[in-house]
Amino acid sequence: MGGKLWGGRFNTGTDERADSFNASIHFDKRLFREDIEGSRAYCKMLGKQGMISKDESTAILNALEEIHREIERGELKFDESLEDIHTHIENALIEKIGPLGEKLHTGRSRNDQIALDTRLSVRNSITKIIHLINKFQVSLIELAERNHDLIIPGYTHLQRAQPVLLAHHLLAYYEMLKRDTSRYEEALRRTNVLPLGSAALAGATLNMDREFLCRELQMQGITANSMDAVSDRDFMVEFIFASALLMMHLSRLCEELIIWSTQEFDFIEISDAFATGSSIMPQKKNPDIPELVRGKTGRVYGNLISLLTTMKGLPLAYNKDMQEDKEPLLDTADTVEKSLAILSPLLKEITFKKETIKKAVEQGYLVATDLADYLVTKGMTFRQAHHLVGDMILSAQKNNKELHQLDLAEMKRFSPLIDDGVYGWLDPSLCIERRNIHGGTGSEAVRKALNHAREELRS
Amino acid sequence: MGGKLWGGRFNTGTDERADSFNASIHFDKRLFREDIEGSRAYCKMLGKQGMISKDESTAILNALEEIHREIERGELKFDESLEDIHTHIENALIEKIGPLGEKLHTGRSRNDQIALDTRLSVRNSITKIIHLINKFQVSLIELAERNHDLIIPGYTHLQRAQPVLLAHHLLAYYEMLKRDTSRYEEALRRTNVLPLGSAALAGATLNMDREFLCRELQMQGITANSMDAVSDRDFMVEFIFASALLMMHLSRLCEELIIWSTQEFDFIEISDAFATGSSIMPQKKNPDIPELVRGKTGRVYGNLISLLTTMKGLPLAYNKDMQEDKEPLLDTADTVEKSLAILSPLLKEITFKKETIKKAVEQGYLVATDLADYLVTKGMTFRQAHHLVGDMILSAQKNNKELHQLDLAEMKRFSPLIDDGVYGWLDPSLCIERRNIHGGTGSEAVRKALNHAREELRS
Amino acid sequence: MGGKLWGGRFNTGTDERADSFNASIHFDKRLFREDIEGSRAYCKMLGKQGMISKDESTAILNALEEIHREIERGELKFDESLEDIHTHIENALIEKIGPLGEKLHTGRSRNDQIALDTRLSVRNSITKIIHLINKFQVSLIELAERNHDLIIPGYTHLQRAQPVLLAHHLLAYYEMLKRDTSRYEEALRRTNVLPLGSAALAGATLNMDREFLCRELQMQGITANSMDAVSDRDFMVEFIFASALLMMHLSRLCEELIIWSTQEFDFIEISDAFATGSSIMPQKKNPDIPELVRGKTGRVYGNLISLLTTMKGLPLAYNKDMQEDKEPLLDTADTVEKSLAILSPLLKEITFKKETIKKAVEQGYLVATDLADYLVTKGMTFRQAHHLVGDMILSAQKNNKELHQLDLAEMKRFSPLIDDGVYGWLDPSLCIERRNIHGGTGSEAVRKALNHAREELRS
Amino acid sequence: MGGKLWGGRFNTGTDERADSFNASIHFDKRLFREDIEGSRAYCKMLGKQGMISKDESTAILNALEEIHREIERGELKFDESLEDIHTHIENALIEKIGPLGEKLHTGRSRNDQIALDTRLSVRNSITKIIHLINKFQVSLIELAERNHDLIIPGYTHLQRAQPVLLAHHLLAYYEMLKRDTSRYEEALRRTNVLPLGSAALAGATLNMDREFLCRELQMQGITANSMDAVSDRDFMVEFIFASALLMMHLSRLCEELIIWSTQEFDFIEISDAFATGSSIMPQKKNPDIPELVRGKTGRVYGNLISLLTTMKGLPLAYNKDMQEDKEPLLDTADTVEKSLAILSPLLKEITFKKETIKKAVEQGYLVATDLADYLVTKGMTFRQAHHLVGDMILSAQKNNKELHQLDLAEMKRFSPLIDDGVYGWLDPSLCIERRNIHGGTGSEAVRKALNHAREELRS
Repeated sequence: MGGKLWGGRFNTGTDERADSFNASIHFDKRLFREDIEGSRAYCKMLGKQGMISKDESTAILNALEEIHREIERGELKFDESLEDIHTHIENALIEKIGPLGEKLHTGRSRNDQIALDTRLSVRNSITKIIHLINKFQVSLIELAERNHDLIIPGYTHLQRAQPVLLAHHLLAYYEMLKRDTSRYEEALRRTNVLPLGSAALAGATLNMDREFLCRELQMQGITANSMDAVSDRDFMVEFIFASALLMMHLSRLCEELIIWSTQEFDFIEISDAFATGSSIMPQKKNPDIPELVRGKTGRVYGNLISLLTTMKGLPLAYNKDMQEDKEPLLDTADTVEKSLAILSPLLKEITFKKETIKKAVEQGYLVATDLADYLVTKGMTFRQAHHLVGDMILSAQKNNKELHQLDLAEMKRFSPLIDDGVYGWLDPSLCIERRNIHGGTGSEAVRKALNHAREELRS
Repeated sequence: MGGKLWGGRFNTGTDERADSFNASIHFDKRLFREDIEGSRAYCKMLGKQGMISKDESTAILNALEEIHREIERGELKFDESLEDIHTHIENALIEKIGPLGEKLHTGRSRNDQIALDTRLSVRNSITKIIHLINKFQVSLIELAERNHDLIIPGYTHLQRAQPVLLAHHLLAYYEMLKRDTSRYEEALRRTNVLPLGSAALAGATLNMDREFLCRELQMQGITANSMDAVSDRDFMVEFIFASALLMMHLSRLCEELIIWSTQEFDFIEISDAFATGSSIMPQKKNPDIPELVRGKTGRVYGNLISLLTTMKGLPLAYNKDMQEDKEPLLDTADTVEKSLAILSPLLKEITFKKETIKKAVEQGYLVATDLADYLVTKGMTFRQAHHLVGDMILSAQKNNKELHQLDLAEMKRFSPLIDDGVYGWLDPSLCIERRNIHGGTGSEAVRKALNHAREELRS
Repeated sequence: MGGKLWGGRFNTGTDERADSFNASIHFDKRLFREDIEGSRAYCKMLGKQGMISKDESTAILNALEEIHREIERGELKFDESLEDIHTHIENALIEKIGPLGEKLHTGRSRNDQIALDTRLSVRNSITKIIHLINKFQVSLIELAERNHDLIIPGYTHLQRAQPVLLAHHLLAYYEMLKRDTSRYEEALRRTNVLPLGSAALAGATLNMDREFLCRELQMQGITANSMDAVSDRDFMVEFIFASALLMMHLSRLCEELIIWSTQEFDFIEISDAFATGSSIMPQKKNPDIPELVRGKTGRVYGNLISLLTTMKGLPLAYNKDMQEDKEPLLDTADTVEKSLAILSPLLKEITFKKETIKKAVEQGYLVATDLADYLVTKGMTFRQAHHLVGDMILSAQKNNKELHQLDLAEMKRFSPLIDDGVYGWLDPSLCIERRNIHGGTGSEAVRKALNHAREELRS
Repeated sequence: MGGKLWGGRFNTGTDERADSFNASIHFDKRLFREDIEGSRAYCKMLGKQGMISKDESTAILNALEEIHREIERGELKFDESLEDIHTHIENALIEKIGPLGEKLHTGRSRNDQIALDTRLSVRNSITKIIHLINKFQVSLIELAERNHDLIIPGYTHLQRAQPVLLAHHLLAYYEMLKRDTSRYEEALRRTNVLPLGSAALAGATLNMDREFLCRELQMQGITANSMDAVSDRDFMVEFIFASALLMMHLSRLCEELIIWSTQEFDFIEISDAFATGSSIMPQKKNPDIPELVRGKTGRVYGNLISLLTTMKGLPLAYNKDMQEDKEPLLDTADTVEKSLAILSPLLKEITFKKETIKKAVEQGYLVATDLADYLVTKGMTFRQAHHLVGDMILSAQKNNKELHQLDLAEMKRFSPLIDDGVYGWLDPSLCIERRNIHGGTGSEAVRKALNHAREELRS
């Protein structure tokens, strides 16, 4: 037999251009594993419910396995007039085992079949991504531990603000990624739900065991409304959104890696193995990978808007517009997986240039806040102290000096409250130590945070 | 005193145009309640830790309360040179109680203060929205119950597909909104976390009791990294995203209300109280509200892209770009709240036109799938049956007949397997009854689903 | 030889994963024609300027032609370690003609080469799309002419508003597409400009004849600033934007085709050749193509946001992020071309169901505005007339009558001003005729508009 | 009288919540000038065509002028139940001059009125923005001229690439803004077209002189199709898109200003008048304005997606969704105007720190490409030269030297072709001079470009 899964009520065949335009096979063929996985479970359920015999069940399962292997080996020929992966597999099945193959479609429609396939696909992607995030977090923690006592300038507005531990800085990304993981996990809970049994839109008529299917496919529940089940794309949009936020976080880290790699900052050296050169400028060593990841953020934002736009204003239940869901979905999964997979080893091979960084920490009055705090301990209000330190800096700047380079006499000109205890407040490492509050950059606080992270990553 | 919270190290004052461009007071004044709530808790903490005396604490708390009332009564004058709501309130405080007012800023920066204010604001919005969703779901359920036995055409591709219960159709939206609620709840968990103690970026230096603040503000945890805490806007983006999905769902319902209100469908009548007319065409009664809600979907999508774009590629920690977070945030909250608040009463007053709907269910071969199922019970494969029914419809169409209008002889011409039991398969209400599978449109299944929904809504 | 175009200053080779992540060959291979076209012109210029000999020039040109053919026949093997199409072609050239092949790169960098390739690609796409729009407009006009006297209900808020000619309705889309064409033409002017000579960013050092290159490549000008030239992606974003607006217009038309195809509206029949069925519901005939086009709108919006996001905040000049430009670009071109190409024949085969439409025009008080106009001719202000007609409709509705079904006595009860001349104002075709203002739906006005469109399309 | 412009056919009044939800007066009141300008022209046309008498015309014009003044003085009370600015002005008119006021609405609907108002508004915005761009370009040119011989490092991948003139760098932005202007101008041509005469959707019935209105309102043409005219929002989307591209350009410049202001780059000093401090860190001087402008890019991208989404899939003609057009439109205009207006003076007061910049130009092997070019003049192919220079740099780096610091013997070890002419190729200012190609950074080329820009700005 072979051919489309419909056609009886049509006078003429479809125009070839229409076939080509409607076809989804060029991208949904990527879902063949999920489609066969779903079909295997469905076949078992039909057997269990006595809708097909044991022998029939075995024959179908074997044939499906064969098809699986054939597709993996690239032996199945894809053809646009067969529309989609479901039709291809069903046709292949019928070719192998005759009319028995047709029975597998009983009680299913492509609407609930594609809902299942994409749910399985998102489930796989999330599982993979959570694993990759975990590895990425390990890379962050290792980098932090390897440089555990390195003080770097902390920035706001990209202006030097206060000294912080590099480890503290890196742990900020650890936190972002932790939130990403929790968003993916929650999205997974809403994804891992069985739509089979919804049929085209109104629910299946057969004596179907949805609970059995649910267990067989290791899903966490079954959908509660058939019309919703075949037209729900929330789980995809949510997956893409979680990915958009993740990419946003990576784009921030990448921006920093790029800036830190400049000759002007000169804070880090990316390994030659993860940098590229220029075809024209022989001296160039470019941080291509962080740039590309930063650029790919746009791609995932685009995918998010793409699917949100497509779904806007669609009446119930399935509409063909929804076929546009798969490319943004698969592209997002690819992008996130590749970005995480490449950044982890890149991070591992970053070298921090401690000398330049030390100089940077010592210049730019990063200890000014602590000086103000010191004045507060001497009885000023913070606001007065803030103003007075501002004046001191203005004057120091004119003389090209840092605060610790002012001698006590110079300091006292600004306030008689200052005594030589002040210098203890102008040492960056002591500034760090005054911030051992939970969540602060104090070395004890950071050590605890690192340990805590290690534990979380192990669990 | 009064004035900006900085300035010591500056030679000249800021240009007036710069003041105006930088100011956020015209929108962040909406956060005055949250700002004062945070300051009250902070003041108590300072008292508890002995950083201020009991009297000082009382004086500050009283003054804050007074300021609260003054702002509510519109008595505080806002001024762009005072930049933001924090500066306004601090200045007002100092005006009232002198230098003591300055002490409240000790150990806080505007960076962690605004992080707190916006977290409180998102918390309030989510709480309000979850309540509004609940009310909206009640309206859906009531509408379903009021029309509990009404069969409508179920559509795919906006073509009549199979008969379904209206209640089943409405319950699809119930499910979408349930997912929305769970997304908001999860976003709330990540939102309701205390950033105070992060100071500008490196953590506070003082002996601060973050756990006390957390309890005082009824938050569920404290942030684990100060650099992340002052530059994290995930909770806002996530709130806007949950809202974008919600609006997408509403846009789908509104599209249906609009289509159902056309003279061609004529399925429903929206109450005059929720429709509008035309200034030029006297006969017009327009479904403005569903249209507007559908249109506002774009607005929330826009807010989502706005904030995602702004955050892309920002290095740690705070950057001024982030000031652009508040308008999309507040606008999203307003939009969602208003949309839900207006659709609930509108739904309550919708009248379904049962006669037209009945006619629609009976025309267009909605029972065709069941006829194929019937043939399957007679021994055909579904695929053959599907093709044969297609032929029957083609022929019936030419004679302007529905399937149940074909007499047995006519039917038998297509297949001798058909006997007069067939007519039992062509009655829409029996089609419904064959779908009592969990999640299906069968009346028993739907009754259970309604009861289940009622229970969920009560809890 | 063969290999990357850089590497001297690197200690180690790149990691394979980095090669794969950085590579663009899997998508930029589509630009091989443009790349070779640019190289041919460049080769001629080098010859003309005496930088290579005549023989060398011929050898290079021949080899390029050969490579062109080989790629078209699928004979060139693509390899991720060779990064991009430029490297592949250069390597192939060197393989063919030895070190002479290296000379072609003289004075060019990949930065200006890719700028050229993409400009040529956008130029080709625009040319093709303008042609397809033209064909699409012809289909619209033909459909209009074929149904030149068909009156349909004009809608606002999807409620019947006033009678209009179908041709008038279709001409609205003609106008939208005309604007699309003009936007593409303007984008073309900014695209069709020669960047070669910009080298990596600072301009070429050689004695290069940019004017010659410009003529050779049939471009309209040369870029004025090298740093801008290698980092400008405006022409791509603009192309995608023009496409987004076009898709928006198509989405509106498609929405109408979908609504008009419903059993409830029943205004049109899409040819079987451009519709599809359901695998489960034998009666279904679905307007898949309009649905898909509507859905693809999201895709192009997504591409727009993708590239805009990627470009945001990039410092001068080239950054690797920009490599993310090509996929949204090429995908947009494909989407628009395919959508236009399929809608044109689909439009040609649409059948309008004149009976149903006629009934729709006569029901729903579409002539109410004209009745008010009539009352104005009798001396009322429009506002009074509007109110009075509203009352009449309310009363007619209760009696299930249309306005022309009210007898004169009934009418006079609302206003003694009414005489039997009124019925002339209640005939839809006369309503049409009263609107022969330029741009109105009067049949004379529409005939002129059709003729005007015909002329524009011919030119 | 006073009240809504419709209502006759309604049994009950609208719910207050519905009034509030539907109302647009809180934002469309900003269009009162445009609304009155349109009404004045319309009134004159009615007079000219004899539809109202000369006295009536005068009375209406006077009353409109009065209303104009009242609104400007804040004397008109706005009320949500009156929906929009048109209703407010019409009601105010009737209040002043009685039923005569009603005549002004004759032949107009709010659909074509709002189309006119927004077209006038966009026209005004574009005119203002083009002027502001011009001023901004003047600031760029002045800054370039003031530092006409300053050589800075040109970057790709934010890595030092080749020396360029600062003027050349700034001229890149001049070019971007020139394209912005041309896009605005073209958008203006499509905006400045008269929709009046389209009435609700089908065209006006009256003897209306559209050409007169066109001249009176100084528009460039009249719309060709009434259904398109009332539902076309292209001109707004196009305006927002032109603005999105402009903001993208500004975001790039701002990113550079922010990076150049870091202590690490230390290339520029922004005037105190355009910077801000920190409430907690006394030393901070933050580039808030460039940061905010960069952040506001997201806002305009969001507005673009907002309106594109809203318009997607709307059937003809007007739908209430379109009311959502005005806020993104007006917000975009405000954002762009303010951003340009603040950056111009900020640019004027930027100081370049020539010493630091000079050092940056001399470090990082920016002349490497020229060294390769030199070797090409000695007979190497560029590719060989590229590789050899890479080797030299690797070795120089190890010895912490720049290329010009290698003595001839060291150099010759890499290639015997090198003689002491090589040093002429290692001087950044000579590198500049070798790039006097049109569009290159050569000082002569840049001087010409500056002159050319000056001329263009004058015209």
